[in-house]
Amino acid sequence: MNNPAQKRIRDYGVKIGKLETGPNNSLTDVEGVTVGHVTLSENDGQTGVTAILPHQGNLFKEKLIATTHVINGFGKTMGTIQINELGTLETPILLTNTLNIGTAADALFDYMLEQNPEIGRTTGTVNPVVCECNDMFLNDIRARFITKDHVRQALENTSSFVEEGTVGAGTGMLCYSLKGGIGTASRIMKMEHGTYTMGILVLTNFGILSDLTINGRAVGEELKERILQTREEQDKGSIIIIAGTDLPVSERQLNRIIKRTITGLSRTGSIITTGSGEVVIGFSTATKIPHDHTSQCMSAPMIHEEEIDLAFRAIGEATEEAVLNSLITATHVVGRDGNERPALKDLLKKYTIQL
Amino acid sequence: MNNPAQKRIRDYGVKIGKLETGPNNSLTDVEGVTVGHVTLSENDGQTGVTAILPHQGNLFKEKLIATTHVINGFGKTMGTIQINELGTLETPILLTNTLNIGTAADALFDYMLEQNPEIGRTTGTVNPVVCECNDMFLNDIRARFITKDHVRQALENTSSFVEEGTVGAGTGMLCYSLKGGIGTASRIMKMEHGTYTMGILVLTNFGILSDLTINGRAVGEELKERILQTREEQDKGSIIIIAGTDLPVSERQLNRIIKRTITGLSRTGSIITTGSGEVVIGFSTATKIPHDHTSQCMSAPMIHEEEIDLAFRAIGEATEEAVLNSLITATHVVGRDGNERPALKDLLKKYTIQL
Amino acid sequence: MNNPAQKRIRDYGVKIGKLETGPNNSLTDVEGVTVGHVTLSENDGQTGVTAILPHQGNLFKEKLIATTHVINGFGKTMGTIQINELGTLETPILLTNTLNIGTAADALFDYMLEQNPEIGRTTGTVNPVVCECNDMFLNDIRARFITKDHVRQALENTSSFVEEGTVGAGTGMLCYSLKGGIGTASRIMKMEHGTYTMGILVLTNFGILSDLTINGRAVGEELKERILQTREEQDKGSIIIIAGTDLPVSERQLNRIIKRTITGLSRTGSIITTGSGEVVIGFSTATKIPHDHTSQCMSAPMIHEEEIDLAFRAIGEATEEAVLNSLITATHVVGRDGNERPALKDLLKKYTIQL
Amino acid sequence: MNNPAQKRIRDYGVKIGKLETGPNNSLTDVEGVTVGHVTLSENDGQTGVTAILPHQGNLFKEKLIATTHVINGFGKTMGTIQINELGTLETPILLTNTLNIGTAADALFDYMLEQNPEIGRTTGTVNPVVCECNDMFLNDIRARFITKDHVRQALENTSSFVEEGTVGAGTGMLCYSLKGGIGTASRIMKMEHGTYTMGILVLTNFGILSDLTINGRAVGEELKERILQTREEQDKGSIIIIAGTDLPVSERQLNRIIKRTITGLSRTGSIITTGSGEVVIGFSTATKIPHDHTSQCMSAPMIHEEEIDLAFRAIGEATEEAVLNSLITATHVVGRDGNERPALKDLLKKYTIQL
Repeated sequence: MNNPAQKRIRDYGVKIGKLETGPNNSLTDVEGVTVGHVTLSENDGQTGVTAILPHQGNLFKEKLIATTHVINGFGKTMGTIQINELGTLETPILLTNTLNIGTAADALFDYMLEQNPEIGRTTGTVNPVVCECNDMFLNDIRARFITKDHVRQALENTSSFVEEGTVGAGTGMLCYSLKGGIGTASRIMKMEHGTYTMGILVLTNFGILSDLTINGRAVGEELKERILQTREEQDKGSIIIIAGTDLPVSERQLNRIIKRTITGLSRTGSIITTGSGEVVIGFSTATKIPHDHTSQCMSAPMIHEEEIDLAFRAIGEATEEAVLNSLITATHVVGRDGNERPALKDLLKKYTIQL
Repeated sequence: MNNPAQKRIRDYGVKIGKLETGPNNSLTDVEGVTVGHVTLSENDGQTGVTAILPHQGNLFKEKLIATTHVINGFGKTMGTIQINELGTLETPILLTNTLNIGTAADALFDYMLEQNPEIGRTTGTVNPVVCECNDMFLNDIRARFITKDHVRQALENTSSFVEEGTVGAGTGMLCYSLKGGIGTASRIMKMEHGTYTMGILVLTNFGILSDLTINGRAVGEELKERILQTREEQDKGSIIIIAGTDLPVSERQLNRIIKRTITGLSRTGSIITTGSGEVVIGFSTATKIPHDHTSQCMSAPMIHEEEIDLAFRAIGEATEEAVLNSLITATHVVGRDGNERPALKDLLKKYTIQL
Repeated sequence: MNNPAQKRIRDYGVKIGKLETGPNNSLTDVEGVTVGHVTLSENDGQTGVTAILPHQGNLFKEKLIATTHVINGFGKTMGTIQINELGTLETPILLTNTLNIGTAADALFDYMLEQNPEIGRTTGTVNPVVCECNDMFLNDIRARFITKDHVRQALENTSSFVEEGTVGAGTGMLCYSLKGGIGTASRIMKMEHGTYTMGILVLTNFGILSDLTINGRAVGEELKERILQTREEQDKGSIIIIAGTDLPVSERQLNRIIKRTITGLSRTGSIITTGSGEVVIGFSTATKIPHDHTSQCMSAPMIHEEEIDLAFRAIGEATEEAVLNSLITATHVVGRDGNERPALKDLLKKYTIQL
Repeated sequence: MNNPAQKRIRDYGVKIGKLETGPNNSLTDVEGVTVGHVTLSENDGQTGVTAILPHQGNLFKEKLIATTHVINGFGKTMGTIQINELGTLETPILLTNTLNIGTAADALFDYMLEQNPEIGRTTGTVNPVVCECNDMFLNDIRARFITKDHVRQALENTSSFVEEGTVGAGTGMLCYSLKGGIGTASRIMKMEHGTYTMGILVLTNFGILSDLTINGRAVGEELKERILQTREEQDKGSIIIIAGTDLPVSERQLNRIIKRTITGLSRTGSIITTGSGEVVIGFSTATKIPHDHTSQCMSAPMIHEEEIDLAFRAIGEATEEAVLNSLITATHVVGRDGNERPALKDLLKKYTIQL
């Protein structure tokens, strides 16, 4: 479910792609996935935390098949090495600002140790997954406002209702020189053996205005002319993409799928600049991998490779729409040292641009 | 120089991106690069060879900094392992159909051994680079029409004049369910320390009609409605992208740059289907790496990482335009078993669609 | 089964590692795997072909889970891109000399097209896997002696009996400055849910004498002193490692396993020099992936990650022993221009060195 | 300089490899590199921090060419994504226990922000590099004893004098079922254009006793028999390898070099088990990459590829010796819940084993 008060890109008549969306057009359309935000928005503190719970059981005990993909590596995301080696995710995923990843990791350790008293005693340690973007333009990032309590709060207050825009880790983020933040979307994949969902949640913080493209239209150029923005734009941004699905896939297949997020990203206008940390974390809820070794051989369901194109299309479309949702739901923010970024929806209204 | 008889996408008023093109809007705008085609087009034989010479000296003796990137690996391109390990290219690059890569490699060995009598005697062997797409729809690919003579002819008849469309390795290729083939484009990169060129040549053989997007416009959808094409489209295609530049870059930088070809590719509508071999080979002519070891330390010029965004933009734009050039220059072909594919330019005319 | 006339390293009292070998201590201990050699050994022609059939059915129709790993990429092995993308092997594996890979690929196309009339007609193409080492010291590699007939002969005359040493693709290869060639070994892996086999076949062509280590003993140094070999040794060599198993594993798991070949390789003394093409191809016969898409979801058995250490140990031991088997079974060869390399077994005898 | 009170493996008559060591046989033989330890060793707290300063200037302003390699990814090392993308290191490297990486990262942010007031203001953020092993057997890892003050202390008290064994991050680590910890070694590389140093520092925490091999001798087997250790050994360990050099290399070359650490590691007996985080971080001090963009093209010196084998040999030897140094210098520790691990040197003495 999404916030009915938030008009999303479809509410402006923009329909991305060919596939049907899930009921809420949200990452949480994938059963079991919930999202929680903690938002700090006061003066120079414009930042937050977003937590994604991939399923509602004990993730450490019942891991999910997972994989990661680095689109561009000017980023500090933690936890990718182990996901790629073992093909599993064993913690919630946290999003926050760059300089608070240490705090976030520490708080995630607390949370996991509490739930699993055997960690560090009878079994090994745990691999925290923390992603970040740099919100220094609107947020006093050096102040590192996020505390362990904020992280805990985000972890403990997740639901299938996903607020978008200027919220959680997205509070201080920019996108295409406008206010960015959190966006989500989903697509339905109908196959012979079942109907599945591909869900995307993005934290957007990249791009320059003149590149912004909405469903093929160079809206960024149009806006740039109107607002006579003459200073040189610079992109130091990033995007974090979380992809969840209930499609039965192997780690290799999932990795192929999440690499296609870039098609949707590109269609919003990104050229993937050097200064961006663009990282995708993907998981499938179709198979739970037990932490403890059993005496039997395991078996993981997987689609035939010939079916995978539908997932490729779904993830591209959902990523494109999630980015646009992050933009269109974001609100105008005045932050650190009076720095501010306009909201796309306000500009559309001001210049009476019909999407 | 391009064929003045061939109307390219710009001649239809379509201007891709923000950067200036090179003088011929061609890979051969990069000084020293030449391209040669051999075209077989008779009945069931609709195939060919395209050869790219990265410089006009002895490539084995004076290697170029090079790198490769696999966008999707359902392909048989040869030579990538060594390019990635050593960061150098030491032969011309060949493009042909999938089942003729053995012949092409063999012919390239001939060519290299002739030029370098020391190969296999006083020095090691040589790494042939052969790329391919599958032209089985229009060409009787099982017949393997390409001979070593054809390959030799392509290697020996290169020039800075680049024919596009239904030519060379592109003779039997399809793109977005239309006739595809060879396309090229270039961009100028003005930096403080010099002006550089990014050139792209593509062999296009991918995509379904309804996905085709031209500069943001869903031309494929428009066409699909007009031609009442109701059968399900299937994409088994591929794209080979050759990126040449005179920008001074390290192998790592060049690899970052060529990964951005996917932004341009995505903007033409590709979802990068499973059945495609999408491979990028990139080289820089800025530094020549001597085959023989010298007693001094070498030194390679390289841009500062902060400057690289211009190259990212250039390669995305040039790739997008090269794909469109391959489509718009291609001509209608009737091939194997009467299979045929229409030319985009014919359809635009027939349905009086103005780009 | 191996050639009883060939004394192997165990026959010299050298026991590598802790695990039990398979019945024949051979790659062909993995059920269904067969190996065939064609050997050319006359004057300047000291080369050959080795073919490995991973199973005895139609490989194109029933593919095997497979993966590759590049230890060092100064090599021309073909077919790795597609194996890594799709996780499957669909042809036999060929080994030959570097400059004959074009011929080998061409012959493998012939073989596959014959068996599968639908290739290039109603289904796509096929991905030939051809590996190589450079045998130029003993063989006139520029002459490219291997013909398509030789390749066909190797493919059609495989069996579970594996000749080692100076045979097939190993005919002209060197190892640790001695005569190298083909070697094989296997290990048994006893798990709770079954007993499995790890088989290795190597084509050795790397290393300098003074580095040769046999089960921890610096035999290379000992030999070097005896034979007063004072000229500087240079390593331009390579190793191809083929790993087959019936262990049920995912592509990711198999990739982790084959990376461990390097532990065994290192223990024979290799420093993995720059000029070597060191490539591992691994496959598991536990699951057959149908070429044609079925309407059901597939399911692949896989071990629990906690069980994988046994496979890591097995592959390291088998690789180490296979390298030593290639050395100890090789025979003295005089080849191109009178170049020659001694056999390890002859030197041990001559200098009465007891292993 | 090393601690003269600590007998190292060479002091036992064990000489690894063929190359000469640096003056102190230490990572700090590479000019400008310093190392600092903070050691906590009281009851259940057996842990610490080790800091490596790659040069003595402002690392953020003058970055070093760097690269990373994951041997096995069951680990939580932070910072690798950006190093691999940009090819540079911009902070000191920290080593600590697994569950304290959040704290360590946070403290490293403090340190970097203090030194660079422009971070998060006029320039972007900074990429902390924190590596870890799991010391839960001897240390109450759940207690997370490391504070930001400990980290700061390690960073501020580095020198060219390197204590080894049970010290810093190595305080609670195990190796081959014995006490492990910190070890270091170096090798001299004489080339035509200069004499260079390859330095290694390891944090060892892997392996089972029966696999321990010292210069080819199965010392682990010998010890196992003596101490009648019958319980099944399990390896849940890791190794962190820091490689520093003043050799002029490109990022690609450096990556090739650090991959060869595995040859030395293998020769000590490792089979690289699944449960280990084995990560290598490499840097070269030969080139300093300015943070701020200059108007000129940069130029980085690099060796010719033909010279690289010497670096391959050097790093393998230094890694092997550093691992052995970590073992032989370690002292007996009784830690958490009375868990204890013997020191190799004590066992050698007790059983009068002469190395």
